[in-house]
Amino acid sequence: MIKVGIIGMGRIGKVHAKSISTRVKNAQIVAAADPFMNDETKLWAEEMGIPKIAADYHEIINDKEIDAVFICSSTDTHSSISVEAIRAGKHVFCEKPIDHDTAKIKEVIAALESSEVKYQVGFNRRFDHNFSAVKEAVDAGKIGEIHIIKITSRDPEPPSPDYVKVSGGMFLDMTIHDFDMVRFLAGCDAAWVYAEPAVLIDQAIGEAGDVDTAVITLKMENGAIAVIDNSRKAAYGYDQRAEVFGSKGMAATSNDTASTVVLSTNEGVCGEKPLYFFLERYMDSFANEARCFFEAIEKDTDTPIGVMDGLKPVIMGLAAQKSMAEHRPVKISEITVG
Amino acid sequence: MIKVGIIGMGRIGKVHAKSISTRVKNAQIVAAADPFMNDETKLWAEEMGIPKIAADYHEIINDKEIDAVFICSSTDTHSSISVEAIRAGKHVFCEKPIDHDTAKIKEVIAALESSEVKYQVGFNRRFDHNFSAVKEAVDAGKIGEIHIIKITSRDPEPPSPDYVKVSGGMFLDMTIHDFDMVRFLAGCDAAWVYAEPAVLIDQAIGEAGDVDTAVITLKMENGAIAVIDNSRKAAYGYDQRAEVFGSKGMAATSNDTASTVVLSTNEGVCGEKPLYFFLERYMDSFANEARCFFEAIEKDTDTPIGVMDGLKPVIMGLAAQKSMAEHRPVKISEITVG
Amino acid sequence: MIKVGIIGMGRIGKVHAKSISTRVKNAQIVAAADPFMNDETKLWAEEMGIPKIAADYHEIINDKEIDAVFICSSTDTHSSISVEAIRAGKHVFCEKPIDHDTAKIKEVIAALESSEVKYQVGFNRRFDHNFSAVKEAVDAGKIGEIHIIKITSRDPEPPSPDYVKVSGGMFLDMTIHDFDMVRFLAGCDAAWVYAEPAVLIDQAIGEAGDVDTAVITLKMENGAIAVIDNSRKAAYGYDQRAEVFGSKGMAATSNDTASTVVLSTNEGVCGEKPLYFFLERYMDSFANEARCFFEAIEKDTDTPIGVMDGLKPVIMGLAAQKSMAEHRPVKISEITVG
Amino acid sequence: MIKVGIIGMGRIGKVHAKSISTRVKNAQIVAAADPFMNDETKLWAEEMGIPKIAADYHEIINDKEIDAVFICSSTDTHSSISVEAIRAGKHVFCEKPIDHDTAKIKEVIAALESSEVKYQVGFNRRFDHNFSAVKEAVDAGKIGEIHIIKITSRDPEPPSPDYVKVSGGMFLDMTIHDFDMVRFLAGCDAAWVYAEPAVLIDQAIGEAGDVDTAVITLKMENGAIAVIDNSRKAAYGYDQRAEVFGSKGMAATSNDTASTVVLSTNEGVCGEKPLYFFLERYMDSFANEARCFFEAIEKDTDTPIGVMDGLKPVIMGLAAQKSMAEHRPVKISEITVG
Repeated sequence: MIKVGIIGMGRIGKVHAKSISTRVKNAQIVAAADPFMNDETKLWAEEMGIPKIAADYHEIINDKEIDAVFICSSTDTHSSISVEAIRAGKHVFCEKPIDHDTAKIKEVIAALESSEVKYQVGFNRRFDHNFSAVKEAVDAGKIGEIHIIKITSRDPEPPSPDYVKVSGGMFLDMTIHDFDMVRFLAGCDAAWVYAEPAVLIDQAIGEAGDVDTAVITLKMENGAIAVIDNSRKAAYGYDQRAEVFGSKGMAATSNDTASTVVLSTNEGVCGEKPLYFFLERYMDSFANEARCFFEAIEKDTDTPIGVMDGLKPVIMGLAAQKSMAEHRPVKISEITVG
Repeated sequence: MIKVGIIGMGRIGKVHAKSISTRVKNAQIVAAADPFMNDETKLWAEEMGIPKIAADYHEIINDKEIDAVFICSSTDTHSSISVEAIRAGKHVFCEKPIDHDTAKIKEVIAALESSEVKYQVGFNRRFDHNFSAVKEAVDAGKIGEIHIIKITSRDPEPPSPDYVKVSGGMFLDMTIHDFDMVRFLAGCDAAWVYAEPAVLIDQAIGEAGDVDTAVITLKMENGAIAVIDNSRKAAYGYDQRAEVFGSKGMAATSNDTASTVVLSTNEGVCGEKPLYFFLERYMDSFANEARCFFEAIEKDTDTPIGVMDGLKPVIMGLAAQKSMAEHRPVKISEITVG
Repeated sequence: MIKVGIIGMGRIGKVHAKSISTRVKNAQIVAAADPFMNDETKLWAEEMGIPKIAADYHEIINDKEIDAVFICSSTDTHSSISVEAIRAGKHVFCEKPIDHDTAKIKEVIAALESSEVKYQVGFNRRFDHNFSAVKEAVDAGKIGEIHIIKITSRDPEPPSPDYVKVSGGMFLDMTIHDFDMVRFLAGCDAAWVYAEPAVLIDQAIGEAGDVDTAVITLKMENGAIAVIDNSRKAAYGYDQRAEVFGSKGMAATSNDTASTVVLSTNEGVCGEKPLYFFLERYMDSFANEARCFFEAIEKDTDTPIGVMDGLKPVIMGLAAQKSMAEHRPVKISEITVG
Repeated sequence: MIKVGIIGMGRIGKVHAKSISTRVKNAQIVAAADPFMNDETKLWAEEMGIPKIAADYHEIINDKEIDAVFICSSTDTHSSISVEAIRAGKHVFCEKPIDHDTAKIKEVIAALESSEVKYQVGFNRRFDHNFSAVKEAVDAGKIGEIHIIKITSRDPEPPSPDYVKVSGGMFLDMTIHDFDMVRFLAGCDAAWVYAEPAVLIDQAIGEAGDVDTAVITLKMENGAIAVIDNSRKAAYGYDQRAEVFGSKGMAATSNDTASTVVLSTNEGVCGEKPLYFFLERYMDSFANEARCFFEAIEKDTDTPIGVMDGLKPVIMGLAAQKSMAEHRPVKISEITVG
């Protein structure tokens, strides 16, 4: 039984706590820490059967019984807590992104170099049933050589302008998942990035220095072209699709819905909207990624999404920002790491 | 916390044990009984955290701490164990069918009349996301008055001829779920039943005195016509669909699949087959029905599927058998109960 | 060039005239007759380039230059005009049904026995792209042995009670197409018919002695079971589907729409309603059936839908009427022909 | 009756000749010209009922009885024949593109300035049932303000390298339709173009100086972002889709198929491939665009796709070529016209 501590009990921390508690066999949560732990969260943790609760995450880092930590705190703390945890000999599951600053990520890489612990980054979408089925089709050679990858990723509601200001910008906050998905599906890194951004949903987002709509084109190292389209607000809900087109054909996903019911009336022939947002859409993927993390620990194998997989999408996001700023395609190698 | 004992640890007993253990908040399994409990099952129960294991179900019936029992034993024991459990003051969740013999079901009804316990029958499909969404559309008036109900229910593989002999026949073993679904969606009882049967899949099933294919037409008390088509073997897997057509339109479901991926190649444009069988297709519905059962206990309300809802589909099945034997439509009131 | 006369210039007569004029290469319309030919129809015929127009269809029957006639007059005249045309040596395309009275159809059969002319009945749906693709899949063995055939056939609007009175009843007027489709897809005749009827849409239809909703079950001579569901009014439009299920799988059609556009909004994910009615849905099939008729003439082969194919669905309709009247399954051989 | 001459009797000339002959009411073809008119084409023209056939198109230009010409000759002759026909007072329908050289197009514009004739360019896809339904949804405000437009346009087979050499390149030969579609759906012009090209299908195409795969991003004048993905070879056939996403939702098309049949077997659940190529997919659109052209003549209104609509996509194509050559986004105003 792998003993787990959860650091950060916000929305995503609770998601991991719940899925590990109820859906993962070989791990149990023995502690949770959050500086802003309120009574409601305490009660919630109690009901989940989490025996130890702390304000200070060092109580987890320093707990000899704990084998692995899930870092679900705010993004700006991911890298430093990662380093501390690694040094304390804990296996680390770190929510994405490790950091917006590649220098900080390099510190994590350095810590890992002198350690035997496992490190996994929370790009959960790779473990989604739809995207993993596309990947399987690709790996099985059903698409042939990849020519074009298309990712559609649209949120149901824009974040608040306040959040936008600390988010690192749409490319590092939202598109980062799509950058990872492009790498996952292509099986290689990007060589060039060109971002075509717009502020079309909320002027306040523009005033906060960010964009809310974008089409990002990537030239991949294997010659394929990838294109991501993002919007911070789709009126019909969370739109999460992928399409891989190659020499032998195409694998494409559509959105998940709560039911398959189609209603035919005088008004038309209507199905349900996509599942509302990531908690509804990707719940299974959180349990799946946790299972893979624990399996890597048990079998002493590489985690499926290591620290370099955490770094690369950040570099792609920085390249997209540079492309936007300079209105030109940017080579990945132009981004200085660290 | 409702304390639960599981009687019968075959496939469906384990399904309930697992979904209650991992997905239901306000109940816990404190005992499980099975006369043929082998080491593997014992280990499984241990891993599930079930503290007490017995060969004799009376250890559950007689355990004062147990509030509710799940009867998952063989069909021929459902009614007698139901009566015993009711008399012992236990709330009862009984797998379908209560019995093939209506006289036995009447004994359960009699036992319930002098008791305050809750009784629920395991017609789990009512709790499936697709069928419940159809029902919601009907109840919301989106279909208007119901004119035609169509149920397609096809298994991926036929049962063995040995099983067929003790199954009570396809109408009581398999179609019984569809009879319940017709009542659920129509919101009323059937008045007439006409069965058109065939043996097309396995002659051994015919030699065992049963059929493997059928179309059953029902005239409902509200004037609607229902039609069920059954097959014991669909080459593409478990086919579970419903369609309700009325004065304002139609609500129809399609099958669930493991992913939404569509593969377009020189061969065609292909999606996945339906989820393989009831364990894959209906897993969520087992947790949902258990939750509803426990809620009825906690809130002291009627269970959603009471003993009369358990009796009616058996009567429909007997009417279908009589229709088949006499090759004519049979009035529900022709079936003597008890 | 096959020279054609059209007898009857109502809706269906015009459909044939137009499709032959504009979409059939090896035939030309040289005359059209209708006792109620008004100015509008005359103008229409002129624009179509039809050189000769008459009130009396004998002008067509007696025209030595005419090779073939299309009988598009009222149903009660189909058989007698058929006989006259056959005796005059004309190839005959006769709209469905040949007659409601099998004795009248036998007269046509007798006339054909002493003639070399071709005779085709207008069961156009066999030539529809969807239904013919299902048939091709069946014939190619992709379904294996047929077990269950399902036909859904629902009109967008009910006929007037006045029309109902002269229609021969829903089974001979509307279901007759579905009876033909069942024979076409099954590749054999029906042995037994059981009709479950209802009046749910318009009481005036019931008062006129007819029904507006039905489910008809048929046992086919090859052992398969077929089931047809009919409604005179689907709120969402013309619903025309078929499903053939067999030992190797299933071929199923969905409805045609004017476009593939799907609109995703806050309200849902909506496609278009089916094409409104038979003129929109089956226009291509009218041209196709005409082409096949002319091909049979040119190549001196059997027409795809001969007089016996015209007779059989009428017998099935009469059996359905008897089943409804006597509330029991009726054997096809119970229906006396002629 | 508008009298029409067809100039050029290759594949597209025949398409127009046939659709005008059989599907357009108010026009008739009175002459056809082609310098390479062979016996087969002559016979074909005869069967179509075209009374006059010539090698030299001047016989059409100089024929006083002819009202309108369809220019279906090779691309390099479009503009000069356009000018001649305009000066001769003929209404002109000109196949796309008018020319690869904007100076030549300016000559056509100049000729039109001193003339009253109608001029229409053959961007037929605007008249396709799917794309026009998307446009209707946009115009009806169902999408709200447009944020993202996506066009997928993939051919089933690449052209020969010989054709590639005279084609003007993929952007002017193939993407030009998509550039027009973007303008049509956006309701405005492009401001910036960025092309990400690749040679992935056939190295011979690369050696001929062209590309066979591309993703082209456009910033539109109304702020929307458009993205086109092109491939010269989709293994599953002609892939022609569009998606318009805006503040209120999304309208998206899927491909047309020959039938709606879905085959469910042990292998999967498979529908048909898209209609093979433009002749199958867009046949109706050719008749529709011709009808609109003749209506503009009859009613003396603007044609739906005038000479400026012919010029703009050429400019977009030249901008895409420049973007590719200089590997940067190119402003539309950078392209010198004439």
